Amino acid sequence: MSEGQTHEYTVEMTCEGCSGAVQRVLGKLEGKGVSKIDIDLKGQNVKVTSTLAADDILDIIKKTGKKVEYVNSK
Amino acid sequence: MSEGQTHEYTVEMTCEGCSGAVQRVLGKLEGKGVSKIDIDLKGQNVKVTSTLAADDILDIIKKTGKKVEYVNSK
Repeated sequence: MSEGQTHEYTVEMTCEGCSGAVQRVLGKLEGKGVSKIDIDLKGQNVKVTSTLAADDILDIIKKTGKKVEYVNSK
Repeated sequence: MSEGQTHEYTVEMTCEGCSGAVQRVLGKLEGKGVSKIDIDLKGQNVKVTSTLAADDILDIIKKTGKKVEYVNSK
């Protein structure tokens, strides 16, 4: 059972409304290619373990309107 | 030159990062059917003057991950 890679992003989040919005958008993909979501509001950091491509996840996070940058995949 | 109707929504926004995200997503549609965007963070209110359908704008705001409810169109 492959979980794919863990992709890391820097996301501009300033409150729990911000991190909650990112959680909600990514949460819709749980069981659809996304197996783990780890959001660190203070660290402005989002980690997504997924079989989806890093670029596809980047586009999904961008749709929230938040400023986001790709960091790496492990 | 028709500007369409002004559609009003209640959007859960708790900080300027929240309202900025909504502004960014809707702002991409300026000149593409959206002629005016009015976001009131304190009032949790978003007004969009547009030739697009109210439901289409609702879907666009939903993509931000914010909780949103349609109010009316005038």
